[in-house]
Amino acid sequence: MFLPILFIFSLLPFSHSAVQDFCVGDLALPDTPAGYPCKKPAKVTVNDFVYSALGVAGNTSNLIKAAVTPAFVTQFPGLNGLGLSLARLDLAVDGVVPMHTHPGASEVLFVLEGTICAGFISSTDNVVYFQALNKGDIMIFPQGLLHFQINSGEGVAIAIVSFSSPSPGLQITDFALFGNNLPTELVVKTTFLDEAQVKKLKGVLGGTG
Amino acid sequence: MFLPILFIFSLLPFSHSAVQDFCVGDLALPDTPAGYPCKKPAKVTVNDFVYSALGVAGNTSNLIKAAVTPAFVTQFPGLNGLGLSLARLDLAVDGVVPMHTHPGASEVLFVLEGTICAGFISSTDNVVYFQALNKGDIMIFPQGLLHFQINSGEGVAIAIVSFSSPSPGLQITDFALFGNNLPTELVVKTTFLDEAQVKKLKGVLGGTG
Amino acid sequence: MFLPILFIFSLLPFSHSAVQDFCVGDLALPDTPAGYPCKKPAKVTVNDFVYSALGVAGNTSNLIKAAVTPAFVTQFPGLNGLGLSLARLDLAVDGVVPMHTHPGASEVLFVLEGTICAGFISSTDNVVYFQALNKGDIMIFPQGLLHFQINSGEGVAIAIVSFSSPSPGLQITDFALFGNNLPTELVVKTTFLDEAQVKKLKGVLGGTG
Amino acid sequence: MFLPILFIFSLLPFSHSAVQDFCVGDLALPDTPAGYPCKKPAKVTVNDFVYSALGVAGNTSNLIKAAVTPAFVTQFPGLNGLGLSLARLDLAVDGVVPMHTHPGASEVLFVLEGTICAGFISSTDNVVYFQALNKGDIMIFPQGLLHFQINSGEGVAIAIVSFSSPSPGLQITDFALFGNNLPTELVVKTTFLDEAQVKKLKGVLGGTG
Amino acid sequence: MFLPILFIFSLLPFSHSAVQDFCVGDLALPDTPAGYPCKKPAKVTVNDFVYSALGVAGNTSNLIKAAVTPAFVTQFPGLNGLGLSLARLDLAVDGVVPMHTHPGASEVLFVLEGTICAGFISSTDNVVYFQALNKGDIMIFPQGLLHFQINSGEGVAIAIVSFSSPSPGLQITDFALFGNNLPTELVVKTTFLDEAQVKKLKGVLGGTG
Amino acid sequence: MFLPILFIFSLLPFSHSAVQDFCVGDLALPDTPAGYPCKKPAKVTVNDFVYSALGVAGNTSNLIKAAVTPAFVTQFPGLNGLGLSLARLDLAVDGVVPMHTHPGASEVLFVLEGTICAGFISSTDNVVYFQALNKGDIMIFPQGLLHFQINSGEGVAIAIVSFSSPSPGLQITDFALFGNNLPTELVVKTTFLDEAQVKKLKGVLGGTG
Repeated sequence: MFLPILFIFSLLPFSHSAVQDFCVGDLALPDTPAGYPCKKPAKVTVNDFVYSALGVAGNTSNLIKAAVTPAFVTQFPGLNGLGLSLARLDLAVDGVVPMHTHPGASEVLFVLEGTICAGFISSTDNVVYFQALNKGDIMIFPQGLLHFQINSGEGVAIAIVSFSSPSPGLQITDFALFGNNLPTELVVKTTFLDEAQVKKLKGVLGGTG
Repeated sequence: MFLPILFIFSLLPFSHSAVQDFCVGDLALPDTPAGYPCKKPAKVTVNDFVYSALGVAGNTSNLIKAAVTPAFVTQFPGLNGLGLSLARLDLAVDGVVPMHTHPGASEVLFVLEGTICAGFISSTDNVVYFQALNKGDIMIFPQGLLHFQINSGEGVAIAIVSFSSPSPGLQITDFALFGNNLPTELVVKTTFLDEAQVKKLKGVLGGTG
Repeated sequence: MFLPILFIFSLLPFSHSAVQDFCVGDLALPDTPAGYPCKKPAKVTVNDFVYSALGVAGNTSNLIKAAVTPAFVTQFPGLNGLGLSLARLDLAVDGVVPMHTHPGASEVLFVLEGTICAGFISSTDNVVYFQALNKGDIMIFPQGLLHFQINSGEGVAIAIVSFSSPSPGLQITDFALFGNNLPTELVVKTTFLDEAQVKKLKGVLGGTG
Repeated sequence: MFLPILFIFSLLPFSHSAVQDFCVGDLALPDTPAGYPCKKPAKVTVNDFVYSALGVAGNTSNLIKAAVTPAFVTQFPGLNGLGLSLARLDLAVDGVVPMHTHPGASEVLFVLEGTICAGFISSTDNVVYFQALNKGDIMIFPQGLLHFQINSGEGVAIAIVSFSSPSPGLQITDFALFGNNLPTELVVKTTFLDEAQVKKLKGVLGGTG
Repeated sequence: MFLPILFIFSLLPFSHSAVQDFCVGDLALPDTPAGYPCKKPAKVTVNDFVYSALGVAGNTSNLIKAAVTPAFVTQFPGLNGLGLSLARLDLAVDGVVPMHTHPGASEVLFVLEGTICAGFISSTDNVVYFQALNKGDIMIFPQGLLHFQINSGEGVAIAIVSFSSPSPGLQITDFALFGNNLPTELVVKTTFLDEAQVKKLKGVLGGTG
Repeated sequence: MFLPILFIFSLLPFSHSAVQDFCVGDLALPDTPAGYPCKKPAKVTVNDFVYSALGVAGNTSNLIKAAVTPAFVTQFPGLNGLGLSLARLDLAVDGVVPMHTHPGASEVLFVLEGTICAGFISSTDNVVYFQALNKGDIMIFPQGLLHFQINSGEGVAIAIVSFSSPSPGLQITDFALFGNNLPTELVVKTTFLDEAQVKKLKGVLGGTG
């Protein structure tokens, strides 16, 4: 009574379905606009679907007293093609995630601990939406819009952020403007900032030119 | 020096951009395949982007000793059109989220507290992927595949789950098979379960026929 | 008068358009989240677009007296990237396609011969939609929802089913629960079925553990 | 033991899930780029998912001795948002579906009866792919490319065609060129056809100007 | 010989196809995540598909000596649902389009007249890509990344820019940071700019707080 | 003060973000349904984002007195995955772009110089939308619909056309019908054209059979 069942199995596209069920990214192959090519289903194990790095606090001993620990497709290839990813945000006292955007995804932040003042700026006549968030609150940051998070509490703050893409990207405005070789003259022309201000921040952020 | 700037503002499609930045769902209007129509930008406030219900434990005084508290588009309309949502999972001791699928989204679970034995079954020759997850671990459940979560620890377990759609849907296999008026004869024919077993579970889950 | 035309040809991206027109899958290369890489246009022939296996009845000498003959991307690589696929369903007398889902596609069934009782269960408060279908009737099964087909007529029944993806996937609930090494204890815990019932079906379906 | 279950039900977004499971089109409301707004879930019945018109032969008493009977979203609103549709093709002896395109979908044709010579023309250096198809054969016609079907057998031919969109559209080249008020002079200029030929076909197809 | 043709017409979903061919936006109805509901096909004329405002130079008598004249969905509703839009860029001598992003689209710029120094900053370790563009050159600005355009020539410069969405959005960093009521203290905290600099630019750009 | 910043850099997925920001196509690798695999970010330069061929008039010394100079993904791989492309259209006096479709994209045309009579035919009861366009006018041609452009002025006409895909494809009806080896008998049967007319155009356009 057993073989007949296997028989219908052999009529079903199982060798393929594995790829249709999921597509664990093979980071050794070139990426595509839709994500990485898939690891062979036969080589996929439960370890491709479990990741533990977000359980550990990021190191906040840095200028911004903050750390973002990503679980994006390059850290966690099981997310490849599935349309979402996570990250952990640690904010020491006075920590701040400076103005930034995620060019490739919308974000929802869940406060695990502490108090976070978070906000985003709409491209519509520049309306600002911000609020102090407490443990258990969630807040939305729509794709591509400038937003920030500040530890507005007494102690450390921790959040889990979730994104609508396996590779949301991250562009921190200050690093983009002052942390590279974009000539000071061009920064001044395109931001209206004073030259002295630009040079000062290039100094802090390692920019040249 | 101020008016000239406004002048270029007036050349930009601001009245529309608000809608392009985000589309807070107006649940009073009929849904569409892409989500709900958008609330008028002028009526949108920061409250449309912040939600607090996930900060409170769900009531686990039920048969499965578990509760799912969703922040899907119908609870949190700010997610409309943004391609993601969250939920909180509370598992009392011995709590279980029975075999289920999300027809509309992939899921990533983050363990906030306790120990959870979680797994999913691939449609590919039925390979089972499951593991005990501890605080800080995350696990992927690909779209549409049967999966489950069990509290395998001593105390309560809590998780935040994130989905790749504002309305992932939820189909708990037992409720679908035994919690409605699907005739016992059809359940037996399509599941190979014994009639007594089907009737027993229909009794527990409120099914008829 | 002939060369000048060829001249404008040479200005058009023909070498590429072939790939834009269609992308016959090269199954020897790793899949991607969007499908398989494309076979070289120069090697594509009409045979890549024609498939004959659905003209032959599947073998229904098995436990469920049914056979599904797929024309998914792995059988018919011409479908790669085109967003649809077909399959043939053969149901002997008393044949049944047990409760199952397609994680990756919606389905429309067209009855070629016989009478089929088909239905699906919505994830919404478990509403069941089912009906007896006669020759020429078509029925929709939305993506990811549990559904079934039963030969409810005197003779054989045949249907052509069409899917909204080249790789819809197929997860038959019984095979997923009882046809693998998922420990009996976990099946019991996540389905509320009696242990004896689980062991009985594991015996029938080749499950272990 | 029954109420507690309902309790967890009340925590789940059921009122919405119905819409997420499917979105039966309300044709009385204006369409959107993603399809029609959804009929209220409470008013949806199994009849919204079953359609019988393809069981009846189309009337082939016309110039082309052919009839296309569509089950697109406007005939069968249950398909709204689901990404596929069907149609029935009837070809009397010598019947032909003239050169046409579907601007919005790829197509797969399944021969139910008779013999059909079918083909399409790739936009790539105009390669023609055509073949005689017999009962049970399926053939792919990629989105937007010119294709045709001719009854090349002794008797009638019937096919079921499946599309990758609920509204594939249909543009029959002859009707587009000769069945409207596009001035003869413009048709001649843009097709290189002789004026007499254009006028002759405008006469047959009801064109003016 | 004429009526029979009309007969097959009546079998085709023409009343719907209009909507499937295009979906001219009805801006009086609420937007949706996929765009505006469609204007009734019967009311659509060629005027819905033709727009002339880009033929006129924008007014560059403003602080940035630049003007952007959009043909986005709100100005040109015929683009609704079609996945692209255009805009005209006028740069007087010394004109500049300051650092900005388009949250919803990638951009390609075509130089009609003059010389434009344009560039963007990748979110990848902040690499800057910029170059002087002459008449006839085109340049890509990927979605969501900071970019700028400066008139680097002797005379006026004009460009036509094309976007991959009917509503690309526009967020000019300076206006977002200094042109609204975002408290100076928050701007300082999230940008590392000196308070004096922030206040100075708020003064210029009409910001408060 | 500098190292700490780099430290948080090292926590961010920069090696990947490059690919997420853009995916310059590597045309040496096989295409996929979503586009070409990405060139290694480290090898990408500003030259991958700038293209100059549209600054030069195409050669219109051909039968149609017209030339299309594409900047599609195969000419300009920087467009890969970004959802848009451009082309330049040159029309000598009496030049015409014959009836054609773009199977993969909608189009917007911007008139740079001269006067162009352009139109498209909807698949809806064959409504024709056409108009004479002057310098600065833009016109929409929805995806997959037959359309044409004619130089209706005294001098040359030039246009920049923008598409909603990096590979829109191009199928010129005459070349598809008369420029290949599609047997005359099949052309006659599927177009109702007179055999003499078909043979005449096959002669002009290099068709055989």
